[in-house]
Amino acid sequence: MRFDVTILGSSSATPIYNRNPTAQALNINERLYLIDCGEGTQQQMLRFDVKSSRIDYIFISHLHGDHYLGLLGLLSSLHLNGRKKPITLFAPPHLKEIIDLQLKYSQTELHFPLHFHPTNTVAPEVILDNQDITVETIILDHRIPCTGFLFRQKRRLRKIIKEKTEALDVPLSYYPILKRGVDYFAPDGTTYPNVELTTNSEEPKAYAYCSDTIYNESYFKQIAGVDLLYHEATFANDMLDRANETYHTTALQAGEVAKICGVKKLIIGHFSARYKTLNELLEEAASVFPNTELAIEGRTFII
Amino acid sequence: MRFDVTILGSSSATPIYNRNPTAQALNINERLYLIDCGEGTQQQMLRFDVKSSRIDYIFISHLHGDHYLGLLGLLSSLHLNGRKKPITLFAPPHLKEIIDLQLKYSQTELHFPLHFHPTNTVAPEVILDNQDITVETIILDHRIPCTGFLFRQKRRLRKIIKEKTEALDVPLSYYPILKRGVDYFAPDGTTYPNVELTTNSEEPKAYAYCSDTIYNESYFKQIAGVDLLYHEATFANDMLDRANETYHTTALQAGEVAKICGVKKLIIGHFSARYKTLNELLEEAASVFPNTELAIEGRTFII
Repeated sequence: MRFDVTILGSSSATPIYNRNPTAQALNINERLYLIDCGEGTQQQMLRFDVKSSRIDYIFISHLHGDHYLGLLGLLSSLHLNGRKKPITLFAPPHLKEIIDLQLKYSQTELHFPLHFHPTNTVAPEVILDNQDITVETIILDHRIPCTGFLFRQKRRLRKIIKEKTEALDVPLSYYPILKRGVDYFAPDGTTYPNVELTTNSEEPKAYAYCSDTIYNESYFKQIAGVDLLYHEATFANDMLDRANETYHTTALQAGEVAKICGVKKLIIGHFSARYKTLNELLEEAASVFPNTELAIEGRTFII
Repeated sequence: MRFDVTILGSSSATPIYNRNPTAQALNINERLYLIDCGEGTQQQMLRFDVKSSRIDYIFISHLHGDHYLGLLGLLSSLHLNGRKKPITLFAPPHLKEIIDLQLKYSQTELHFPLHFHPTNTVAPEVILDNQDITVETIILDHRIPCTGFLFRQKRRLRKIIKEKTEALDVPLSYYPILKRGVDYFAPDGTTYPNVELTTNSEEPKAYAYCSDTIYNESYFKQIAGVDLLYHEATFANDMLDRANETYHTTALQAGEVAKICGVKKLIIGHFSARYKTLNELLEEAASVFPNTELAIEGRTFII
């Protein structure tokens, strides 16, 4: 099952040096989960051939413009391109008011249902549970209410060991039951334990998205051990005071989060406009947590 | 005096083929007048090295997203980059409500004064009169209230013929008076008519911006004879029905507007996503009005 994330925007606050405000396209089994939607996200999707028609869910972390100002344009384009399929939007409550006001004055009635699900920005909750994943909010600590999102793959069905089942002439109609872990009761009365006929499916993977936030241990337990952590790293650590003042994290701190939480891999992003090149930030985070990569726009990370 | 316009966006409704929603930067004497501000305008300004710090005025034609969704991001970036100088914003009245709501929920108080001037979308009016130009609204005919903008350079002061004034030993302190057309009264009592000592300044130029509108003669008189006309040409003329239905103009009609109004040059833009290449639209408009050019992003047209 496909489970990867493509970086669409990597800049904090203002776009610069060809870096755009935050957005990521998570592909889970060929359905897209868009995470944040800064200005220009639809243009970035065109550039990197990420098909906006495949978006089923949109997650907005908070109401700073660099995380949602591309949303109206994207919704409008989907509408004009004839979309009929619903979209579910998870976002802080007031975003609904902003969307409704803009649609009202443009006299637009979307051709597709937009299901708005206001996020609770005070306590984490499971906001989505479908056949592929569950999504929980992560309560971050920013200047305004802000949540991250934790995407946990569901455990897939067990895998049939075909040589075994074929040798036993297990009827095909029994396969779905075996995949669910039930033993095989043969016509001759013999019981074959499920573990002899099937193997475990792959370990479910998890992706945690944390932007924007000051360094705060409150969510460390929730994201412990995830396969991939995206964490903001707006500044280098010599700007720690500025990071604290603006409720952001430094690259060193992001590396520490990854290390303390025992994640498998870290991506850092949300780079301040003060950094033309990003080596300094990468090296700083990697000095604490070596398996770190930069959120380069257009790159896809397999989770 | 510099008087030119740089195309920042040329697409209608949805961005596609590297074309972005509408925006233009008018440079008048090194001050920028931004006309419309579709999503990604600030990124386009960075790409084409058009300095957003020089913007003094912003003009929004109407409240369809492809004409204003880049505004909040741009204002926010100017704010974060430390701007203190005021900006005057001319736009349909409801834009104020949209801006205020978004600033409220992002808890942003702009560091610079934003003077909002609601446009009258029913009757044309002079909305700006400064040392360089006057700006009038043009009442367009679109699905929602929409105005174009007519920028008229002011006549500059007369030019001194230095050989003449120096031969007569005209004191330098008299020059500003001569430039204003007053005769020279020499100390010996002789009167030298102004026309003998000065020449006319250049003819003031005019630029008319017309987007979005159905073909409608109501504003033809107002834009008659302008030096440069930007007119939307969303469709080719085989899509005339669709153009009428959506209150847009065809390329053929845009050429006719230019011809009937006796303008000197026409730029067409606001191209529908159905046109990957634009030759068809250019040829169609030029078949009626030969001096037509395409609104290519990054191109600067001297007025």
